[in-house]
Amino acid sequence: MAGPEPTRGPLTPEELQLATRNRGMPLEALRYDLTPTGLHYLLVHFDIPALDTAAWRLRVGGNVERELSLSLDEIRARPRQTLAVTLECAGNGRARLLPRPISQPWVNEAVGTAEWTGTPLAGVLAEAGLKSDTLEIVFTGADHGIEKGYEHDYARSLTVADATRPEVLLAYEMNRRTLEPQHGFPLRLLVPGWYGMTHVKWLTRIEAVREPFDGYQQRIAYWYKRDADDPGEPVMRIRPRALMIPPGFPDFLTRQRTVERGHVEVIGRAWSGLASISQVEFGVDGAWTAAALEKPAGPFAWCRWSASWDATPGEHILSCRATDAAGNRQPTEQPWNYQGMGNNLTQTVHVLVR
Amino acid sequence: MAGPEPTRGPLTPEELQLATRNRGMPLEALRYDLTPTGLHYLLVHFDIPALDTAAWRLRVGGNVERELSLSLDEIRARPRQTLAVTLECAGNGRARLLPRPISQPWVNEAVGTAEWTGTPLAGVLAEAGLKSDTLEIVFTGADHGIEKGYEHDYARSLTVADATRPEVLLAYEMNRRTLEPQHGFPLRLLVPGWYGMTHVKWLTRIEAVREPFDGYQQRIAYWYKRDADDPGEPVMRIRPRALMIPPGFPDFLTRQRTVERGHVEVIGRAWSGLASISQVEFGVDGAWTAAALEKPAGPFAWCRWSASWDATPGEHILSCRATDAAGNRQPTEQPWNYQGMGNNLTQTVHVLVR
Repeated sequence: MAGPEPTRGPLTPEELQLATRNRGMPLEALRYDLTPTGLHYLLVHFDIPALDTAAWRLRVGGNVERELSLSLDEIRARPRQTLAVTLECAGNGRARLLPRPISQPWVNEAVGTAEWTGTPLAGVLAEAGLKSDTLEIVFTGADHGIEKGYEHDYARSLTVADATRPEVLLAYEMNRRTLEPQHGFPLRLLVPGWYGMTHVKWLTRIEAVREPFDGYQQRIAYWYKRDADDPGEPVMRIRPRALMIPPGFPDFLTRQRTVERGHVEVIGRAWSGLASISQVEFGVDGAWTAAALEKPAGPFAWCRWSASWDATPGEHILSCRATDAAGNRQPTEQPWNYQGMGNNLTQTVHVLVR
Repeated sequence: MAGPEPTRGPLTPEELQLATRNRGMPLEALRYDLTPTGLHYLLVHFDIPALDTAAWRLRVGGNVERELSLSLDEIRARPRQTLAVTLECAGNGRARLLPRPISQPWVNEAVGTAEWTGTPLAGVLAEAGLKSDTLEIVFTGADHGIEKGYEHDYARSLTVADATRPEVLLAYEMNRRTLEPQHGFPLRLLVPGWYGMTHVKWLTRIEAVREPFDGYQQRIAYWYKRDADDPGEPVMRIRPRALMIPPGFPDFLTRQRTVERGHVEVIGRAWSGLASISQVEFGVDGAWTAAALEKPAGPFAWCRWSASWDATPGEHILSCRATDAAGNRQPTEQPWNYQGMGNNLTQTVHVLVR
């Protein structure tokens, strides 16, 4: 069943329902190196499941030498690692596309950075013993629903090479505390550098397979496509993006910013899942200057940037854009794709200086 | 400056911006007696301020015998009390009104219950010594912005009688942990039973005054009005409401629910700031039966209710409505007011049983 086509029309009640359930990070929270748990962005496809840790087990099976069934305590007893990781929804920015793909209508705010603690997945897979003809690892969550006519438990796969990278974790803590339910309690996958759909929450099953996984979330949902019939390219790692804390103070309804004249220190964050950030540029009315970059909390965490601005009275358009060490730079004109994925258009903030 | 008039038109980009910043509680979180901090609803009028506890002080002044300037440590050293309190936004349900007042477009989800820890306000006011002609206490937060042309720090007032009730707290912990920034760190007001606008976050100043406070948030924003010119009535305590966890599982986009036939235990919560909950009714296709009520975690917390339903194949409309001990019952037809306040229309959930 196909979904609705992208639209030039106004926001639909279905999109509003999603926007009031899911949660963006207000951009002033870019001030925190680590996003407070309750400010981190959140996208939940179906319902947040209720899992009972006494009954819960992570089952590891399929094309393996030894099937495993692990309790949370057994997973917590394994080698432990903590990483600061920036997560971003692949649909961030979708609501600004024209025509607008109809799904969760993010503007700019589907991002956050937390410290995630867990055990490396590679160790668990080694214990199970992947057979040599294993092609992919499939990760299945407890969240269940229907999307475009497909009823399924949420599931995504990774190649063996991607799944066994040392930074890939089975995570049971966020910001040094037990996961809150909405972030995947009791256990979620964490694949640093990849868009959010990869980090399967409420993990129940890991399965080694010999054929490419063709579940809905893998084969249909997260693809860059020109139209409904385009085979397209899969969405994987996070494209570079910089965001700024909108300076000054807002109007409640319009969010129009008022800034006092004089020196303004503009602050933001930048990240890329493709390489480290090499440059952030800050723009005032179309004139770009290099922002100062700070060292991130780790190779998978956003980095802080700042720029000085001498604000003169009147209306101005501020913007920022990131470039990564692989040469990827944010576009200033909107590329478009059918499902509204990977939109990293340069942010612009309109301000009135008084 | 007047705001836009209520509309029969589609959702506006301004409403979407608010919906992606502010945060509803997904209704499956009604399963928790205490809402996990990151799932609690959140409405922030302006920006979340960055407050430094080393420099921060709570100033108590105005029509008092002794002005006070209290550090967070001094406030934490005072008598300590913890209360389970249900908070709800006065605008909850606004997006379902027709015509629709243009503001934060809540559907149903602007609610949550947490344990809040703080010191009774009455003790601090007693230490400052209210002069006998004090009429109201004004509470001012650090959040600053413009709303309908009024530039102001967010501020609300209470009468001396309301402010000195024993359950009114200056709260510095939520769910037994230091407040996260978005919930008012380092200190917020907590006025159990009242709609959310009363619980001023990021408190910086408490002032005793001899005249009715006429700030924007007190005199204009939170009123029940028929139209722009109606003097109206102030919004105060929370009207009764019951909500259910939508049974079954959802479609991602439409949120349409699918339920398996047979026995279904439908679970929800009910609350009122006017009196305790005396009855919850559960409705199937317009036929009402009494739900079972559990004892709440305290006099200001929601109570759990449940109802058994023998689900038969086909489409059904489920609903629930609460009545409180003062005889207030939720309406089943929508009353309307100009600013979309205190909407407690009975919830309905459409399900397909298979």
